[in-house]
Amino acid sequence: MTTAISPSNRPVKLPIMSADSVPAGIPTAGGESAFADRLTRLGAQAAKAGADVVIISPGADLAYFAGHSVPSHERLTALVVPVEGDPQMVVPALERPGWTGSPIEHLGVPFSTWTDGMDPYQVLVALLPAGARVLAVDYHMPAVHALGISWAVPGSELTLAGEAIGELRMRKEEDEIAALAEVGAAIDRVHGRVGEFLRAGRTEAEVAADIAAAIVEEGHTQAEFVIVASGVNGASPHHEASEKVIEPGDPVVVDIGGPNRTGYYSDCTRTYRVAGPSSDPDVEEIYEIVRRAQQAGIDAVRPGVSAESIDRASRAVIEAAGYGQYFITRTGHGIGLEVHEHPYMVSGNTLPLEVGMAFSIEPGIYLPGRFGVRIEDVVVVGADGAILMNRADKALRTVGG
Amino acid sequence: MTTAISPSNRPVKLPIMSADSVPAGIPTAGGESAFADRLTRLGAQAAKAGADVVIISPGADLAYFAGHSVPSHERLTALVVPVEGDPQMVVPALERPGWTGSPIEHLGVPFSTWTDGMDPYQVLVALLPAGARVLAVDYHMPAVHALGISWAVPGSELTLAGEAIGELRMRKEEDEIAALAEVGAAIDRVHGRVGEFLRAGRTEAEVAADIAAAIVEEGHTQAEFVIVASGVNGASPHHEASEKVIEPGDPVVVDIGGPNRTGYYSDCTRTYRVAGPSSDPDVEEIYEIVRRAQQAGIDAVRPGVSAESIDRASRAVIEAAGYGQYFITRTGHGIGLEVHEHPYMVSGNTLPLEVGMAFSIEPGIYLPGRFGVRIEDVVVVGADGAILMNRADKALRTVGG
Repeated sequence: MTTAISPSNRPVKLPIMSADSVPAGIPTAGGESAFADRLTRLGAQAAKAGADVVIISPGADLAYFAGHSVPSHERLTALVVPVEGDPQMVVPALERPGWTGSPIEHLGVPFSTWTDGMDPYQVLVALLPAGARVLAVDYHMPAVHALGISWAVPGSELTLAGEAIGELRMRKEEDEIAALAEVGAAIDRVHGRVGEFLRAGRTEAEVAADIAAAIVEEGHTQAEFVIVASGVNGASPHHEASEKVIEPGDPVVVDIGGPNRTGYYSDCTRTYRVAGPSSDPDVEEIYEIVRRAQQAGIDAVRPGVSAESIDRASRAVIEAAGYGQYFITRTGHGIGLEVHEHPYMVSGNTLPLEVGMAFSIEPGIYLPGRFGVRIEDVVVVGADGAILMNRADKALRTVGG
Repeated sequence: MTTAISPSNRPVKLPIMSADSVPAGIPTAGGESAFADRLTRLGAQAAKAGADVVIISPGADLAYFAGHSVPSHERLTALVVPVEGDPQMVVPALERPGWTGSPIEHLGVPFSTWTDGMDPYQVLVALLPAGARVLAVDYHMPAVHALGISWAVPGSELTLAGEAIGELRMRKEEDEIAALAEVGAAIDRVHGRVGEFLRAGRTEAEVAADIAAAIVEEGHTQAEFVIVASGVNGASPHHEASEKVIEPGDPVVVDIGGPNRTGYYSDCTRTYRVAGPSSDPDVEEIYEIVRRAQQAGIDAVRPGVSAESIDRASRAVIEAAGYGQYFITRTGHGIGLEVHEHPYMVSGNTLPLEVGMAFSIEPGIYLPGRFGVRIEDVVVVGADGAILMNRADKALRTVGG
């Protein structure tokens, strides 16, 4: 397996955009003590799950627990959190300087480094508590590292820490909510400017490029997704942006977002109408149904209700209007350091909502061969109901006139 | 594990940049028959490795074998290649339209789709040949999917297909080499413009941002990495770009690249000197040593010599000059649909080079507290020696005068 981690001859190169989006410091209500608390709670969750140790690779999970991350690549970087004992970091020697001043370093977590040519899995295994057998890894750990670690521990069992991690990450702390509000306001400003870019005669891709620039201008480190789905393309929820020329009267689904300096994500959808004779007589009626469905989802949010009840509340409005079969997605997904994370607002998810949980509410109606409408806000569960992270106007706006 | 793949309520959102960098069609010498040939050879390699089936998730490996890929995320997309039997695709129903017209579809590989709420691992397992036990996954497959698949096959053994895949990918076909030449010429044009951006008084980050824009202007879909390491920062190979203000006379390592429309990567390093009194008397001498070391690596390339002999050839020049301890990285890495892939030009890699192998040659000298020099070109092994994919001037250029 050594060639699997063949040391490259060069430093990691952070993508020029996401280099910025590696949080300078993940916001936490309690500063560094919050990271210590997260690590303690992770150990407890992992114990409940029957794991002996949790091993976390670069990505949102590492950023959440260590306050810093790096791009995932062929060189092993890992945070080792034993159920019994103290956390440890393993990083390539060349990357050790990049961790200087990180919260995990300030916590006094020891760093072990490995140099090109060494087997990094042996370095990691030497840090495991004696008898550690059940190794829980984060959802995103590349198979090459997950298997490399497990093969270095004879008789070990590989399992997933994603559930245990989700138990922590889906309950946002005060400063995490502030970060979601800040980035939510940034994407609201972009929606406020869509009228500058969206008009008949331009291609979806041209409009998407301008919106991507505005997403960065308004305070994101990256325009991570820009869906501009006009006319019939709006009927396909996964459509992104094409060379299709936008027509007068087209309804256009604009679903956009990205991370800001904190690493937390925005995600907001509005459906616009391009000036001109409407291409379909039912646009306004459908829009109004979706708007009411989305409001019903928001109104259903309170501590103690199930995640699936939010889906049911939005779906009921669309079904009552006779369009149930055209609402072909779930109603919402958790959001934070990732744009999709726990909890999901889906039928079958009986998780009781708690104060601090953050997720999207985004029902839609998708009419094949005609058009689609989707409206999306991010909300946080408050003691008295939903706290909106987005405030962009939800009336059907006509633009490009 | 079902929540591990909790269907989100929305389409995949391609990052606006990498959306473009998903190859419209991976170049292949033989068109679609080349993909059929790759799949056949993958099966043979997997059989040699003792696997019953290879399972490939989104990323460069999927692009290589299917001619198309999508971003990796919580929803399962996989190419299933049994050692005995025909390949199959598994994709989320919502994403099936995105595969229309893809080479893998044109080959007649059947697609199985799954909808939100289904267990995609059961859908995949139903496609496996009876008795399939050893499941080989690509290096990059997220642990959540690799374990999800293995848990759905009682008694199965999870292993890595990366070596088998590397055996194919590291031997470039004619059109892959053409793609490397095209993207190499694009990054050469960017180096030709570095004088427009690099001068004393600007920060590394300001220069990096301008270079990133030029990388896209010159024909890349993304500025995936931009290292601007001036003065003492050049002594740290992993340094990217900081708020450090560039000083007169600073040597500056500029290491840049990204993919173009084909998905193939450029990667080229030049070290410049900013106009002004030299900050160090040895810059020219060190530069000349590195230039000779890099040329020695290039001159050593021919079919049949070992990968490590290229490292040795470059290292010998630097050691002879007395700077061996300051050449702290390996000499090169393979390049193609990934910026780092097999083969690596590292001590211990006895792989005999073959016509069509593509890799970087990038020796450097890194003097702590002083400066660094690195020169990098991508080469392809030809029958008579190295074929250069980069032609940017290798004299020590003074800029910003």
